[in-house]
Amino acid sequence: MILDGIGASSGVAIGKVFIKQQNDFVLPTHKVTDTEAEIKRFNDAKEEATLELKVLYEKALEEVGEEHAQIFDVHQMLIADLDLHDQVVGIITDEKYNAAYAVSEASAIIAAMFESMDDPYLQERAADIRDISKRLIGILTGEKEVSLADINEPVILIAKDLFPSDTIQMNKQYVLGFITEDGGKMSHSAILARTMQIPAVVGVKNILTKLDKNSTIIIDGKSGKIYINPTDEELVYWKAKQEEDRNYKQKLQSLKGTANKTVDGIEIEINANIGSPEDIEGVLANDAKGIGLFRSEFLYMDGHALPTEEAQYEAYKKVIEAMEDRVIIRTLDVGGDKELHYLNIPKEENPFLGYRAIRVCLDQVDMFKVQLRALLRASVYGKLGIMFPMIATVEEIKEAKALLEETKRELLAEGIAVSEDIEVGMMIETPAAALISDVLAQEVDFFSIGTNDLTQYTLAVDRMNAKIAHLYNTHNLAVLRLIKMVVDNAHAAGIWVGICGEAAADTTLTETFLGMGIDELSVSAPSVLEVRKTIQQIDTSKIQLKL
Amino acid sequence: MILDGIGASSGVAIGKVFIKQQNDFVLPTHKVTDTEAEIKRFNDAKEEATLELKVLYEKALEEVGEEHAQIFDVHQMLIADLDLHDQVVGIITDEKYNAAYAVSEASAIIAAMFESMDDPYLQERAADIRDISKRLIGILTGEKEVSLADINEPVILIAKDLFPSDTIQMNKQYVLGFITEDGGKMSHSAILARTMQIPAVVGVKNILTKLDKNSTIIIDGKSGKIYINPTDEELVYWKAKQEEDRNYKQKLQSLKGTANKTVDGIEIEINANIGSPEDIEGVLANDAKGIGLFRSEFLYMDGHALPTEEAQYEAYKKVIEAMEDRVIIRTLDVGGDKELHYLNIPKEENPFLGYRAIRVCLDQVDMFKVQLRALLRASVYGKLGIMFPMIATVEEIKEAKALLEETKRELLAEGIAVSEDIEVGMMIETPAAALISDVLAQEVDFFSIGTNDLTQYTLAVDRMNAKIAHLYNTHNLAVLRLIKMVVDNAHAAGIWVGICGEAAADTTLTETFLGMGIDELSVSAPSVLEVRKTIQQIDTSKIQLKL
Repeated sequence: MILDGIGASSGVAIGKVFIKQQNDFVLPTHKVTDTEAEIKRFNDAKEEATLELKVLYEKALEEVGEEHAQIFDVHQMLIADLDLHDQVVGIITDEKYNAAYAVSEASAIIAAMFESMDDPYLQERAADIRDISKRLIGILTGEKEVSLADINEPVILIAKDLFPSDTIQMNKQYVLGFITEDGGKMSHSAILARTMQIPAVVGVKNILTKLDKNSTIIIDGKSGKIYINPTDEELVYWKAKQEEDRNYKQKLQSLKGTANKTVDGIEIEINANIGSPEDIEGVLANDAKGIGLFRSEFLYMDGHALPTEEAQYEAYKKVIEAMEDRVIIRTLDVGGDKELHYLNIPKEENPFLGYRAIRVCLDQVDMFKVQLRALLRASVYGKLGIMFPMIATVEEIKEAKALLEETKRELLAEGIAVSEDIEVGMMIETPAAALISDVLAQEVDFFSIGTNDLTQYTLAVDRMNAKIAHLYNTHNLAVLRLIKMVVDNAHAAGIWVGICGEAAADTTLTETFLGMGIDELSVSAPSVLEVRKTIQQIDTSKIQLKL
Repeated sequence: MILDGIGASSGVAIGKVFIKQQNDFVLPTHKVTDTEAEIKRFNDAKEEATLELKVLYEKALEEVGEEHAQIFDVHQMLIADLDLHDQVVGIITDEKYNAAYAVSEASAIIAAMFESMDDPYLQERAADIRDISKRLIGILTGEKEVSLADINEPVILIAKDLFPSDTIQMNKQYVLGFITEDGGKMSHSAILARTMQIPAVVGVKNILTKLDKNSTIIIDGKSGKIYINPTDEELVYWKAKQEEDRNYKQKLQSLKGTANKTVDGIEIEINANIGSPEDIEGVLANDAKGIGLFRSEFLYMDGHALPTEEAQYEAYKKVIEAMEDRVIIRTLDVGGDKELHYLNIPKEENPFLGYRAIRVCLDQVDMFKVQLRALLRASVYGKLGIMFPMIATVEEIKEAKALLEETKRELLAEGIAVSEDIEVGMMIETPAAALISDVLAQEVDFFSIGTNDLTQYTLAVDRMNAKIAHLYNTHNLAVLRLIKMVVDNAHAAGIWVGICGEAAADTTLTETFLGMGIDELSVSAPSVLEVRKTIQQIDTSKIQLKL
């Protein structure tokens, strides 16, 4: 049987399943007479839980880095929270219930409160409250679920959903991959799976009803396909595929130092996409020369307030100095699925069609100019490209450029040096921008096509929405026609054009893009060598586009 | 001073303002000893409120029809609700508070409960609860707000927001127009204003701080512009404009019975958009010959369950029989901003990019086939066109056509007659459909371009979102280029192409559309004659398109 899910982390895994049982645990609920003793039990459980969380934090720090480990710090804070304490103690004292029941009640109330908040960051805390509630109740009742840490043979883990603590606890050595019924491509577990480089498929409805503990499965984390009790042919095919993958990855390493040149001698720029200066190490290790997309919004999403001009300047400078070639920094791209809770952007009905990216920046000019100042100041340390996101009209790019010029004049008046050699470009993410790219090309030095958003808007499909995910397809003829239109218009105006969306790393599209005449591909660092290899096998004179 | 808002109901109004004061009323809060008497006061207030609501219902029924009057039925039911009763009586009995305070507390709790529900229909009930709470408290305290019914001279009404009951109570004879600080184009008040044909502008931030009771203003409900204490020139201009409007409307009447023919003899089809068989009267009165868009979803949105095949059949038959020319019925287009709460569509992050229209129908085939059966059965009573909405890929239109064929075969096998002369078409609403319209044209008999959604997706702008409403523009070059592409591809394939979005009635675009060679325009009934007049003044041989 073959099932389809959402490929959340690529790679092939083959093995026996380990089913994480649904919690059909019955919460013990009874009255207590010695409320003091019950409160002490609760306090002891909090202490034990905190110890567990410290261990998990250290484990996560080592395995997946601080960013992902932080969740266990958050859990420790939530357990220490006075509100939870007061509510639990209140239920024990006033209603004389046992501690486990009191924890369950109190955390349900607090989770509901978080959920009702008009802030996605706080809403997410509800899942964490449930996670710590489960932990406390497990300690209080001694009825812990089978711990994923106990997995001691190679398995593919199947669960309704995985909590952050589950994904960290599992013994990476033995977990070949995982599948969840819930969750989307951007769920916490999916992101973690990619970091841990474990194949994973999420959003597989009812898979738990289709398996038993003796099932063998194959998962292909790229396509999201799952083969339950595969046929011998399927097993042979996918085992070969797995082996092939391994050999392939080794071969790629030998391509370091070689050129991104086609058989017929056309050279393509391959640059890397990054989110912070810390990513540079991986970029250099994978032999990319420049940065095609520095997503500056991650500087804004780390903290709880806007980053200062100085902090931004330092980050931009660090990246520009580290790279031999050009560094293209995209100005703040928030909104859509990337919310800055401290910016107080009102909840929108359709955030992807809303107040985001350049629309926010042109509206909040003071904030925007802080970023432009930081960018211009950093420009003297190397070769900088400034790129504006989500342009839909020619007025927007003119306005953005005018603000950049104004900021430059102000800096020069203050005696601060600015490079004379900055390239100014824009993302092509809206169908509108692609359709008027002949007009827009007159305004900028380069285009970079954001295929993710372009596909979303062209097909009117939210790619995060599992219910219609089958419609999201960058290979769609309409999307490819728009990309070709952009390339043609760019070249007619004498400017260069690249792709920085996920399609740039889709090697089944590389030939098509080269056939269109694309000048640059900007991909995540681990994809650089794979795209290079693909390019080296293409003869552009033989490409026949069918658009 | 000129302010910008969202034009919610077109027309020009000039006059003195009437400012609906903000409620700075202090709720009397005190303890009572005779709780029985206080409960009786509450019961009396409920009775009086119910009487008031019956009067409002009758008034609304007469002035704006049953659909809009129903809200006062809902209010009566909410007042009779036992939950409210029990909560109020509980607060009076247990906490010994006065009835007005008890009503305020109880309704705040109930409103919060409605707001937290995961169903937009129920969420909206929160505003109604507040409306009835205000009514009950007004009766209990005798401190009613200045009633809008007391307006006794021609004024332009200014308010933070208008409750449904406000808009109905106001003396239409004297209310020249209104402006609200809150609300969007699709708010209850805005829709009502259009039905009552009163010019209105909504979403005008802080207007209350910029006016005093002696201000004179001009509002242009079309552009959303507001002139506060206008200059003499502005007054003269807008008075002339108003007069011109009146004369123009009279002149249009003389065009009945004339052809939709340009100066150079090109005939364009003008059809009407309708939502239910009741709209046919207005269509015939405005001299449209066919229906270019019957939005069948309104049959689904009226009730609390799916309409039966029989109910649909009757509705379709009625419309088809009533019209001389072709009736194009669009299959169910729910999702996006049109929710069917009984369908249990999960709340989506971006409903406009989500599970909607043909995507729902191809997923819920049983439901879809009920509609297809009803359509096919009704087809024998005249000339039917069946139109599929939100097509983004060629697979979708093929699948929809296959289901239609399958249903047809099933009906014929049952011995039920089906017309041999049904046209099958599709909406062009996604940029993808426009971009591959050459391919899609091979599949259908006609295209109808939905400019509202096409503009939204092309520009990636939710037109309901006030924060970025300035970007939504059907005149945008990118949108017009897509429309031209569709017309060219349709004609190359030998099929006809129309426009049924709001742009079809935008007479500043008529020349452009005729220049492209559009075959049909489908507009709301009141716009038919205006578009006819515009067409009659155009010489297509002189049009120079600048795209």
